[in-house]
Amino acid sequence: MTRHFVDWRQLPLSDWTACLERAQVHASARERLDQRAAGRALGMVFFNPSLRTRASMELAAAELGARCLTLNPGQGTWSFEWRDGAVMDGAFVEHVRDAFGVLSSYVDAIGVRVFASLKNYAEDRDEAVFSALLRASRVPLINLESAFWHPCQALADGLALQQQFGAQCQQKKFVLAWCYHPKALPMAVPNSALTTAARMGFDITVLRPEGFDLDAQVMDYSRELAHAQGGSLRISSDRDASLAGANVVYAKAWGGVGAYDDPAREQAAREAQRSWRLSTRDLALGDDPYFMHCLPVRRNVEVDDAVIDAPRSLTQAQAMNRLHAQKAILEWVWQL
Amino acid sequence: MTRHFVDWRQLPLSDWTACLERAQVHASARERLDQRAAGRALGMVFFNPSLRTRASMELAAAELGARCLTLNPGQGTWSFEWRDGAVMDGAFVEHVRDAFGVLSSYVDAIGVRVFASLKNYAEDRDEAVFSALLRASRVPLINLESAFWHPCQALADGLALQQQFGAQCQQKKFVLAWCYHPKALPMAVPNSALTTAARMGFDITVLRPEGFDLDAQVMDYSRELAHAQGGSLRISSDRDASLAGANVVYAKAWGGVGAYDDPAREQAAREAQRSWRLSTRDLALGDDPYFMHCLPVRRNVEVDDAVIDAPRSLTQAQAMNRLHAQKAILEWVWQL
Amino acid sequence: MTRHFVDWRQLPLSDWTACLERAQVHASARERLDQRAAGRALGMVFFNPSLRTRASMELAAAELGARCLTLNPGQGTWSFEWRDGAVMDGAFVEHVRDAFGVLSSYVDAIGVRVFASLKNYAEDRDEAVFSALLRASRVPLINLESAFWHPCQALADGLALQQQFGAQCQQKKFVLAWCYHPKALPMAVPNSALTTAARMGFDITVLRPEGFDLDAQVMDYSRELAHAQGGSLRISSDRDASLAGANVVYAKAWGGVGAYDDPAREQAAREAQRSWRLSTRDLALGDDPYFMHCLPVRRNVEVDDAVIDAPRSLTQAQAMNRLHAQKAILEWVWQL
Repeated sequence: MTRHFVDWRQLPLSDWTACLERAQVHASARERLDQRAAGRALGMVFFNPSLRTRASMELAAAELGARCLTLNPGQGTWSFEWRDGAVMDGAFVEHVRDAFGVLSSYVDAIGVRVFASLKNYAEDRDEAVFSALLRASRVPLINLESAFWHPCQALADGLALQQQFGAQCQQKKFVLAWCYHPKALPMAVPNSALTTAARMGFDITVLRPEGFDLDAQVMDYSRELAHAQGGSLRISSDRDASLAGANVVYAKAWGGVGAYDDPAREQAAREAQRSWRLSTRDLALGDDPYFMHCLPVRRNVEVDDAVIDAPRSLTQAQAMNRLHAQKAILEWVWQL
Repeated sequence: MTRHFVDWRQLPLSDWTACLERAQVHASARERLDQRAAGRALGMVFFNPSLRTRASMELAAAELGARCLTLNPGQGTWSFEWRDGAVMDGAFVEHVRDAFGVLSSYVDAIGVRVFASLKNYAEDRDEAVFSALLRASRVPLINLESAFWHPCQALADGLALQQQFGAQCQQKKFVLAWCYHPKALPMAVPNSALTTAARMGFDITVLRPEGFDLDAQVMDYSRELAHAQGGSLRISSDRDASLAGANVVYAKAWGGVGAYDDPAREQAAREAQRSWRLSTRDLALGDDPYFMHCLPVRRNVEVDDAVIDAPRSLTQAQAMNRLHAQKAILEWVWQL
Repeated sequence: MTRHFVDWRQLPLSDWTACLERAQVHASARERLDQRAAGRALGMVFFNPSLRTRASMELAAAELGARCLTLNPGQGTWSFEWRDGAVMDGAFVEHVRDAFGVLSSYVDAIGVRVFASLKNYAEDRDEAVFSALLRASRVPLINLESAFWHPCQALADGLALQQQFGAQCQQKKFVLAWCYHPKALPMAVPNSALTTAARMGFDITVLRPEGFDLDAQVMDYSRELAHAQGGSLRISSDRDASLAGANVVYAKAWGGVGAYDDPAREQAAREAQRSWRLSTRDLALGDDPYFMHCLPVRRNVEVDDAVIDAPRSLTQAQAMNRLHAQKAILEWVWQL
């Protein structure tokens, strides 16, 4: 059975716990000359730019003893066809069915980054592109951020939270705080942060302006998950009330309603919310809260310098944890 | 004596046979932790995009124990001067004489991909660019597809044929079938497939529309080679007659007469042949033929999905064989 | 104490001597399977294109046993914000404060190439961008060419000079000869070549047309350094007098006065000096001089083919020495 690593929702909670434990082991003592994956090769295909993910994954593989092969199709832009049955007389020169079949011959797992199209909501929500890759690949795929999910970030964030609160976070208040950004960004990271907090039992508030809700299915899933773990989930547009007493503020920008079907309307709605920039005044409303952001962050646009650079900021810890988390994921995928 | 690997025509047939045998050994048992090339370094310079070649060559080197250094000059486009005596006051910032001299100091062999210019036929046919690189390099060069030849693909294809038919293919019918493509493509792959089939003694038909002949010198060379190996070579534009009884159908698109000196005329001639798309009906005319294509392939434009995905399709085997073939080539170049 | 490697002026002369000795050891016997840096990782961030530096540094690290991680932000163009306090609502998606902080978690040293902006002279002279990177990084930074300095090239050039003249070069005449180039180039290489020659005690002439002086602070520093080492420094626009008796001619193009604040004027002044192309006739004025150039060189524009390809040309030796010099630098940085 090929162990694809695409979306935490597809795996039992025990796999999350086991990976989190292994990530903690790696965080406690970074072994750099492990040879358990010697002879194996990890391919990585980045259809979109990457800094942290590429760097941490290349090192994670190397420190386990594996080789890494990194490809940037079309120099960072999409240049593969993925739709079954397509008549390929346009810009795409190769179908993922062929390309990922071939890569499956060469390597033992393929990490893939392919962001949301922001064109077709149903396709993004259903991970239509990633699903096509899964059909084409004969080796495990590892999701390095897809249309709706960023499970590597989720595990790294979970580790950062566990490092501060332990594994159980009931009665702790987690605020996922929408921020203004000049572009309509995908929802992979907020979706992942939300479900991570739910999985750990936080009392969660999604703080966003009207018109910037996350996907209803993701919200329903997260609410059920939170309840099952002794937590809760609510939605609010009241900044002061939401931030009051917060133990964690996770800042993130994402596109609003209309981003897919009426970009001009979405942009106008977003521009009207330029004041949603996280400041030290906002943080001071909380209970000496930790600040989280997946990076990259537009400083003084999404979040003020003083917040990012404060002692309670976990941004650097989150990034460091990417390395540890991804070692755990490679161990899981390869059953090391 | 530096062992450049540029063009199979320059090597005795015994070297082909020896490399094919070694490739078969690698195909039979993929050794991933070989150390015979430990300490050596392979440089690779891609003036054009690559997926299979880059991935398979990086792994081939690594699995032999060598290091690999991959460069993409000008991000995939040509940005070196190669003409001797050029006054470099234009776009080119470095001459290959300097660049390949320098790389010769660092690495033990240099793989190079540099496609046909499609501007100057005589220069392409005579491999003018590659010849300049040979003059500049003090270490072996390995051709990763040049203007007229793709010898790595040739060996991988030869291995795929041998895996199905054994080393001798007399009385077997090999059809090199031209396909429509929206662009005028270079002839490196059809030239290489043709001479590979000739070397193995097939009865070959080059099936193409009028005006899409391959180079006359390459045809003459291949005809003589085929005859010497007990095979034959003919040209036809009759699809049904050519495909009848075929044991192998190798599909490939290439530009026609005029691609170099009258692109508009060539394009018009090509567009008139959109019906030259290979289908299961075409394949059914043969003797349960194997289907081959070097990839990438424009599905449902060059060839129908059903042909590529059929059990008799060797496309994935050809790609897998790239790894094995290139290990054999590195062994030959480095005399391991 | 983090050992950043940014600018030779900041280090005692004894460090230069020690690195030069180690580089000579590496040049004498290239060890390719050294394991003293096993487990370490070198990150490299190229904001500008590179051939020699990237290739030689990847191999230098690998031959010491270290891993190498190479990043090209924005595909070779600047895409990070570096100014403290910037409001990032423009093109930059990440601040170096975050990016280099994160990389510091993953790797043990970061090599950085970031050319002069040619926009703000004071910022370039004061290495404003590199200084921002130094503030952001928690691991040693290695300068792979910054706005004003190219210390890796300096050490490789010093090694090439020592290989010809020994460590002491008093009474030997070194001419830094400005050449015409179609673009206004930065001064990092001429600054570095100048101070290298000063450090070795040459009698130096900076030969350039009026209006193409190097930075006054760099000239003052180099003059004092040359005097302290028993050498001298003068400026001239008289080609024949300057080249007469030369033992070394180091050719290099750089932008003139006005490159920062009046590019049109600078260009006009530069175009008027197209005759400043180094020829064999020029070299014949010297005392059988060695020719040096850091490469890439625009042949027959900056320098004639016959000069670059002559037996006394050290261009290939300089490039080869990059590998040896950078091993010495990695040893120094990591205290191996």
